[in-house]
Amino acid sequence: MLTRELISNRLIELQGSICAALENADGKERFIEDNWKREGGGGGKSRIIRHGNIIEKGGVNFSAVHGVLPESIRESLKVQEKVFFAAGISIVMHPHSPHMPIMHMNVRYFELSNGQYWFGGGIDLTPHYVVEEEAKWFHGELKKTCDRFDAAYYPKFKAWADDYFFIPHRNETRGIGGIFFDHLSSESQEGKQKLFDFIIAVGETFAPVYTKLMKQKKDLPFNESQKEWQLLRRGRYVEFNLIYDKGTRFGLETSGRTESILMSLPETASWYYDFTPTAGSEEEKTLRLLKRGIHWI
Amino acid sequence: MLTRELISNRLIELQGSICAALENADGKERFIEDNWKREGGGGGKSRIIRHGNIIEKGGVNFSAVHGVLPESIRESLKVQEKVFFAAGISIVMHPHSPHMPIMHMNVRYFELSNGQYWFGGGIDLTPHYVVEEEAKWFHGELKKTCDRFDAAYYPKFKAWADDYFFIPHRNETRGIGGIFFDHLSSESQEGKQKLFDFIIAVGETFAPVYTKLMKQKKDLPFNESQKEWQLLRRGRYVEFNLIYDKGTRFGLETSGRTESILMSLPETASWYYDFTPTAGSEEEKTLRLLKRGIHWI
Repeated sequence: MLTRELISNRLIELQGSICAALENADGKERFIEDNWKREGGGGGKSRIIRHGNIIEKGGVNFSAVHGVLPESIRESLKVQEKVFFAAGISIVMHPHSPHMPIMHMNVRYFELSNGQYWFGGGIDLTPHYVVEEEAKWFHGELKKTCDRFDAAYYPKFKAWADDYFFIPHRNETRGIGGIFFDHLSSESQEGKQKLFDFIIAVGETFAPVYTKLMKQKKDLPFNESQKEWQLLRRGRYVEFNLIYDKGTRFGLETSGRTESILMSLPETASWYYDFTPTAGSEEEKTLRLLKRGIHWI
Repeated sequence: MLTRELISNRLIELQGSICAALENADGKERFIEDNWKREGGGGGKSRIIRHGNIIEKGGVNFSAVHGVLPESIRESLKVQEKVFFAAGISIVMHPHSPHMPIMHMNVRYFELSNGQYWFGGGIDLTPHYVVEEEAKWFHGELKKTCDRFDAAYYPKFKAWADDYFFIPHRNETRGIGGIFFDHLSSESQEGKQKLFDFIIAVGETFAPVYTKLMKQKKDLPFNESQKEWQLLRRGRYVEFNLIYDKGTRFGLETSGRTESILMSLPETASWYYDFTPTAGSEEEKTLRLLKRGIHWI
């Protein structure tokens, strides 16, 4: 049977293998490790990298927390049960180079004291410059992982990501999307195990995809104005995470560990008043491609 | 009688005099002017300054909007009426120097189609380094403005600002506070006029206070690590505005003009993982003073 302990241990193992792969591809810095306890119950292990060759700031967080759900969260989840357990991994990588995308992954298990449970997660890519071939390849890799479990997953979870990673006040997607899913559960133990295998497979997709991009992009030159554009795009990333991201809100409202939750924010971000890219520029092209409903595959 | 037109005109006049005073004190750049219309009704005049001698990025926004209140806003305001009018001025100034504080001011008039109305507003100061004498002086200036109208205003609105400009997930105030008030109304026309005079007086407090600080601070030298600290403090400012600020939320949820709402964000901000100032440093002292309930006067 899939116990909380088994789930947590497998997630910690996944965290370790992802960090090892990223360190190897970065070739300079190593992840520091920060163990923390949550006052209301549980805790986590944050692993943080800073000022690597390729990665400017990144985090691979594991947490397994339990306790009482605040009223606001119960309302938004539409559940009565007060006592919860949640375990998961969250990753965000912010690279130095504007040619290298930001990438995010999260997988999680959520359980209520009445036994109700579900899995959720997602992977999405936020290029500072959208490259169409790369977007196709990225979505293809996610589709491969999904198809190993259910051919219906990719189209459904791709559309879900388009809706989720959207910034209404900018009328822009956060990046080129990916997959997003939530509330996956099953009546049987076998079904539960299969769902858990799926989220682990999603987690295992992160490192090969990102390290491949690291290798491809690490020597591409960039100039000052491309760097400025990157900082502006990071500003949008900050807006999404602080205003709309449910995981961030859930964490802050359940008195999660602030530094681990906000490790998703870049080392530096910018906001210029009413910045508009030049017509015909790569920046303008990127904005045109930050839309929902693009079928990359 | 105090019509919407009279209110709007007086606010635009206030906007003009504040911009003129700030330009004069800055001595380099001038405010650009951006007139915009809101799809749902109304519009505004944003005035923006960038890369002045002292001010790195600042905005003095006027808006007068009307239309239908979204459900979410009606719920949070606990009102049934759907049609609203709102006029106000919002200012945020982000200086180059870490020795110069960020300052914010907002005054607003809100009216529902059933005639129900109220005034709201506030001023608060966010020093990157808290200087106790300056905090005392700042609060003294606000008290003087309040006392001209009602001796009960300052203590009440000061406590309100402590509660409002608070970042729960950091257990820090945004800065040294100031005054904050909302839902001020009166049964009589005379009372309404007096409340309007009060918000104009609050608005008129901004320029003399901020330009005095500009003159005092403009030649103070600073080093690289003080600049880094400033960017980290700006990160907290971004967190407050995007997660908690009701004006920002109201604006984004009523499809306000995004660029005018988010002019409050600094040109650049930073986040380092788990940054802790050295014991005994000026930075640590500042953190100790970013608490609610400090009686500066």
